[in-house]
Amino acid sequence: MAAGNGTTSASPQLIANLATANHILYDQGVLDAFGHISARHDKEPERFLLARNMAPALVTADDIVEFQLDGVPLTAAGRAVYLERFLHGAIYRARPDVMAIVHSHSPSVVPFSTVRDSPLRAICHMAGFLGTATPIFEIRDFAGDASDLLITDNRLGASLAQVLGDKPVVLMRGHGSTVVADSVVTAVFRAVYTEVNARIQSDALRLGPVNFLTEGEGKSTAHTNEGQGMRAWNLWKKAAEIRCAALAELKG
Amino acid sequence: MAAGNGTTSASPQLIANLATANHILYDQGVLDAFGHISARHDKEPERFLLARNMAPALVTADDIVEFQLDGVPLTAAGRAVYLERFLHGAIYRARPDVMAIVHSHSPSVVPFSTVRDSPLRAICHMAGFLGTATPIFEIRDFAGDASDLLITDNRLGASLAQVLGDKPVVLMRGHGSTVVADSVVTAVFRAVYTEVNARIQSDALRLGPVNFLTEGEGKSTAHTNEGQGMRAWNLWKKAAEIRCAALAELKG
Amino acid sequence: MAAGNGTTSASPQLIANLATANHILYDQGVLDAFGHISARHDKEPERFLLARNMAPALVTADDIVEFQLDGVPLTAAGRAVYLERFLHGAIYRARPDVMAIVHSHSPSVVPFSTVRDSPLRAICHMAGFLGTATPIFEIRDFAGDASDLLITDNRLGASLAQVLGDKPVVLMRGHGSTVVADSVVTAVFRAVYTEVNARIQSDALRLGPVNFLTEGEGKSTAHTNEGQGMRAWNLWKKAAEIRCAALAELKG
Amino acid sequence: MAAGNGTTSASPQLIANLATANHILYDQGVLDAFGHISARHDKEPERFLLARNMAPALVTADDIVEFQLDGVPLTAAGRAVYLERFLHGAIYRARPDVMAIVHSHSPSVVPFSTVRDSPLRAICHMAGFLGTATPIFEIRDFAGDASDLLITDNRLGASLAQVLGDKPVVLMRGHGSTVVADSVVTAVFRAVYTEVNARIQSDALRLGPVNFLTEGEGKSTAHTNEGQGMRAWNLWKKAAEIRCAALAELKG
Repeated sequence: MAAGNGTTSASPQLIANLATANHILYDQGVLDAFGHISARHDKEPERFLLARNMAPALVTADDIVEFQLDGVPLTAAGRAVYLERFLHGAIYRARPDVMAIVHSHSPSVVPFSTVRDSPLRAICHMAGFLGTATPIFEIRDFAGDASDLLITDNRLGASLAQVLGDKPVVLMRGHGSTVVADSVVTAVFRAVYTEVNARIQSDALRLGPVNFLTEGEGKSTAHTNEGQGMRAWNLWKKAAEIRCAALAELKG
Repeated sequence: MAAGNGTTSASPQLIANLATANHILYDQGVLDAFGHISARHDKEPERFLLARNMAPALVTADDIVEFQLDGVPLTAAGRAVYLERFLHGAIYRARPDVMAIVHSHSPSVVPFSTVRDSPLRAICHMAGFLGTATPIFEIRDFAGDASDLLITDNRLGASLAQVLGDKPVVLMRGHGSTVVADSVVTAVFRAVYTEVNARIQSDALRLGPVNFLTEGEGKSTAHTNEGQGMRAWNLWKKAAEIRCAALAELKG
Repeated sequence: MAAGNGTTSASPQLIANLATANHILYDQGVLDAFGHISARHDKEPERFLLARNMAPALVTADDIVEFQLDGVPLTAAGRAVYLERFLHGAIYRARPDVMAIVHSHSPSVVPFSTVRDSPLRAICHMAGFLGTATPIFEIRDFAGDASDLLITDNRLGASLAQVLGDKPVVLMRGHGSTVVADSVVTAVFRAVYTEVNARIQSDALRLGPVNFLTEGEGKSTAHTNEGQGMRAWNLWKKAAEIRCAALAELKG
Repeated sequence: MAAGNGTTSASPQLIANLATANHILYDQGVLDAFGHISARHDKEPERFLLARNMAPALVTADDIVEFQLDGVPLTAAGRAVYLERFLHGAIYRARPDVMAIVHSHSPSVVPFSTVRDSPLRAICHMAGFLGTATPIFEIRDFAGDASDLLITDNRLGASLAQVLGDKPVVLMRGHGSTVVADSVVTAVFRAVYTEVNARIQSDALRLGPVNFLTEGEGKSTAHTNEGQGMRAWNLWKKAAEIRCAALAELKG
């Protein structure tokens, strides 16, 4: 069981991967100073792991905090935590298959969250997991028309989880997206290629009517590509560590 | 009181932050070799601090000059100063709440300064401060149709301040924008996310009718996000210092 | 003759160039963690050389494997190989003039693979080799509407080669492109400028009716430019080696 | 007078600046492995200086060759020279005011060379020198419809100079642009901001009817900005030298 003194019972390998995933998502342009990635605790499925409130590029293993699914931190030891930790817990509760979650404001995805007539969907095989449509969470339906757009409590987290349904990605209007998967490696892979797909879709739509992937093609490509995820992870990790190690060396 | 020999009575921490802000705005692509950021003097509110005429990436604490609000340099010690220092003084005069000002030609914002039918406004929560419209300063209304578009005297500065009104950002047609805030950290935050918002808005508009933030959402998101500004500042500072230290090491 | 123990009889210079080509294509943004470049064996024209299954940025001479044209690896020594090796062999079989092949998902090219009304064609002299139209391989015509879009057997490879015909480039719908040439240097040159041309064409099409290269201009420019290919190769090699050497230094 | 042994009588400072200009134009994305910048000889106005045939990023003072205005190299000492050296000589002949010339394929400018209805013109004050329209050189009018688009002789050079007229920039259809100025510093400044202006114009045009600079504004801004050119040069030089020194250190 997790202690209140800042330590956790989760596997050191999982925690190391989660720190690396933070760096990769920064280096690949999915996260900037904001956004976060969590993993379900590998020994206590009713808990999850998430960095304390800080820029992802600077996260180390020591910054990973253990949370209950209701968003209560167990090992924060007084450190500030992310305002939107509730979205992670709510999705882990609703989706037993989900083991990792990326929440980002990745810049090519946000435009698709603000329009109704042009759903984000798989246009290239690397993002086949997107299928034929991505749901949009309109927070006005749940929090009125003057909210700060953030998922800052369990009720909003549950609503987001409901709109996500059984999909891998949900867009959040005017805000960003949340990507889920059955591992940290696949969640990172999906988050990167959701951004890539959005750029390609945006460019293709202005050329003429687009021939998207069918539902069957989405499933087949997702199945094949997820067997290749470590190829990307291993490269991305190296590129990210070069950049993040340079940041970490600076004081202050 | 400031001396004519190049020293200033402002807080060393404020001056250091202003030098860092120059580097961040360069590294984040808001400034190139041109544009500038000022801060109101922390002990003499009728003065402001601004670098001498030079590329922002290379500014150090020793390059920060103290000015009167009418643009007269007090500590330049003969060094050249920016042609557009008047815009800073005029806004500090008109807006007692403003403590820092960024003037830039950031490339995704300039297009919005040249069109009337598509106002820059908050499309994403990180730029909620933009609200539902950003005013455009049309210098032809004040300087005729053959000016050099610059704010090179106090009269034009006052006109710009008037168009800015009580907003956080004013676009300057065919030129750039000016962003104000109650601190250097928030001014940098707003300048970066004004550019991010412009890119997202430009991309979204070609997808279909856009669902922008409401006025209430703009206020709520601005309130929440500005409490998180140091998270971005701390990361951006590290990234900027790596790049600018390499530049500073070169002679010539 | 190639041995099963991981060695090959191909020229060390060709193998070194193939490793360099992998790095260049990564550094120039044609390949990310996926995609590959092959060369026809310089002594055994019924064989080709291709890296084992790994990210191109990390390929060294020791990672180059020799294959039969039917995709059977001869020197893999148990190492995993690319799923799409069949596209290389099939094209070498159909096109005796082809000595090198790049398969990529380069991001500006993919949109053109998904539309019928806006064929990728030479808009700038550096990509004159594209001529007046680039064929699109629609895998649904050969593998049904629920495939994973990959060329995973010799039958699909032969179909792709047929759609390629005598052209230098074939687009693959929702997937990427395949570029062929009579040398590794020219294949890299063509792959980079196919991506450049796609970006320019995409930007130009929204400005108004475009004045493309004629068929004769395409031929003339291709002839002239391919005499200049080493100028680009020598620069790109240096830029790539700086970046890839840094990646290679990291363990793990 | 220049000797045939590879030395030149031009000022060492001019030659050093020309090498630096090559590096800046590469680092700023105006040149890739192709394109070039020349300067009129400072002692012999009927001659000009231009690198031998090589990638601009790698040019050193020793690579600068002296040419007659008819394109005959005087100090090449057997080294290969650029195919398009004739465009430089022809413009120096037609325009006594011109002291430096940049020829590039800068990627955001090329689209404007391919359309008739959307002339490149000043949209932002940094590119006021562009005025209200940029001429397009259609090589088909001079070389037929199957040329390689290059300016490979004095006759084509003279035609290009004629289309340029008294302007600072001429677009070359499907090819690139040529930028002239009265100094190396200003030529570099104009080449960089021609590319910046093209990006901004391309983005603005899709937002709605654009409010461009007037002719008078173009003149005024050009006059003001060119007094600030060293600010950009000094920064760009540092950024370029970091990148190009790393390239130069590599062997091979």
